[in-house]
Amino acid sequence: MKVNILGCYAATPRSFTNPTSQVLEIRNNLFLIDCGEGTQVQLRRNKIKFSKIKHIFISHLHGDHFYGLVGLVSTFRLLNREKELHIYGPKGIKEIISLQLKLANSWTNYPLIFHELNSKKPELLFEDEKVSVSTIPLKHRVYTNGFLFREKPGDRKLLINEAVKLNIDVTLYKSLKKGKDVVSEDGKRIENKLVTSDPPKPKSYAFCSDTVFDPEIIPLIKNCTALYHESTFLEDQMELAFPTKHSTAKQAAIIARDAQVKHLILGHYSTRYSDIELFRTEAETIFPNIILADDGKVITVE
Amino acid sequence: MKVNILGCYAATPRSFTNPTSQVLEIRNNLFLIDCGEGTQVQLRRNKIKFSKIKHIFISHLHGDHFYGLVGLVSTFRLLNREKELHIYGPKGIKEIISLQLKLANSWTNYPLIFHELNSKKPELLFEDEKVSVSTIPLKHRVYTNGFLFREKPGDRKLLINEAVKLNIDVTLYKSLKKGKDVVSEDGKRIENKLVTSDPPKPKSYAFCSDTVFDPEIIPLIKNCTALYHESTFLEDQMELAFPTKHSTAKQAAIIARDAQVKHLILGHYSTRYSDIELFRTEAETIFPNIILADDGKVITVE
Repeated sequence: MKVNILGCYAATPRSFTNPTSQVLEIRNNLFLIDCGEGTQVQLRRNKIKFSKIKHIFISHLHGDHFYGLVGLVSTFRLLNREKELHIYGPKGIKEIISLQLKLANSWTNYPLIFHELNSKKPELLFEDEKVSVSTIPLKHRVYTNGFLFREKPGDRKLLINEAVKLNIDVTLYKSLKKGKDVVSEDGKRIENKLVTSDPPKPKSYAFCSDTVFDPEIIPLIKNCTALYHESTFLEDQMELAFPTKHSTAKQAAIIARDAQVKHLILGHYSTRYSDIELFRTEAETIFPNIILADDGKVITVE
Repeated sequence: MKVNILGCYAATPRSFTNPTSQVLEIRNNLFLIDCGEGTQVQLRRNKIKFSKIKHIFISHLHGDHFYGLVGLVSTFRLLNREKELHIYGPKGIKEIISLQLKLANSWTNYPLIFHELNSKKPELLFEDEKVSVSTIPLKHRVYTNGFLFREKPGDRKLLINEAVKLNIDVTLYKSLKKGKDVVSEDGKRIENKLVTSDPPKPKSYAFCSDTVFDPEIIPLIKNCTALYHESTFLEDQMELAFPTKHSTAKQAAIIARDAQVKHLILGHYSTRYSDIELFRTEAETIFPNIILADDGKVITVE
């Protein structure tokens, strides 16, 4: 599982930072999460193949999280995309994108499918045999969702030498991987755990941006492998965090600690801070495993 | 008169080029012309003060010419802008920007004034005592205008030594600068041209992008100091130029030659060409004074 950080800074533009966007690589899926202005150029710089993106998740309709979407949708057409593109985001997103395409006289030549969200409860957005994606309702100045990406448990790992030794027919290997007991060629019942080992533990990734400090999300992200939680401010700007409905690095760390996640990735830094190491220092007073997101960084989640 | 090229490449995104946007500095006015995705970052990189921009001209509603506008409009709010902002562009532009601000719950805190265009004839958009701006109707796949920026003739230059010698009262200097004859303190009528010289010749700048080859624009841009004319293609892709309603470098040069402009600035290069010098070579077969636009370049028009 890899997170490509395309941009992780708050809205005020600077010469060399980008607003929120990231690509999650998980079990052969490539999910684009948020799409701030400049995302398509950041995809190019990070050498991510446009055609591999089939699902885009937009947390909320503030510009620094989706103003790059319409450009990307248009570019897919220029690149002669044929595959379906699914966009999941707050109600209104379809109207915004469609209006712009209509006025530019440039409809897509591929199926563009909107999944508009307005539930305030967690809901399942996508599922295949390997991965599921659900919403994490967040509290921000507009309707906002985080997203929880979960690997499904994989097949059990076959201990091939044991299986041969116990004289199990190869046609039963599939059942063994699925965790079933089988009967050997000499008629003995073979307990599954004698010839298989546990699959790798499924990993999970929670993306939570933008949000005020909100312990209500903890049960939803409990034991996540990695949590990306916004930290727009440090505690020195605490008086700004609540009215703007953002979090501090310390608050993000409290959520990580209480949800017992393995890693906390910080981002959505206000551009008032010139040194992002300050976010690590503050968060580490609460929670040990801090990763600082930064534009262009690829984070491998183990 | 200076043209800051923020971006001058066609739509397909690349790591280090930008779609169309430029800032024209003319007689203390700073005009933003087109606003492709990433313009606000390019403004930062080119160290252009956001607050100095009061007028934005959008040629047409293709994304590579205006998808950066809503981000810039939002950023002005973040920067606590108070001054009016005027946006001139095709009908529909107000709806697009307003819808996005509405859904983001983020109205501007400064007066945002739209001037929506739908005339197919040239019209005056802006005028102050020093400059005028009019449309140049262009032929493209959607409703498109170029823009003609004209300096007005300045005051005549006072030859101060002559004025003193001829005993002219200082209160009459203003009249002299306006080209009037005056009467000296000793009662003599003084012909204006004895104490003034001609003002610098007013300069003009025509921005023509995007457009198919269209000699009908020639009378509108006749004798311009500098013409920016799109050259999406070279003649080798002539068969693409007409159906996509774009021009080749050679066609841009024909327009420049026939309109007897002083300088031709080329831009809006298709990203299929890796060496933009090819555009100069092709255009120079027709017209000598070629300037190649490039992102970040500042062109001083003399």
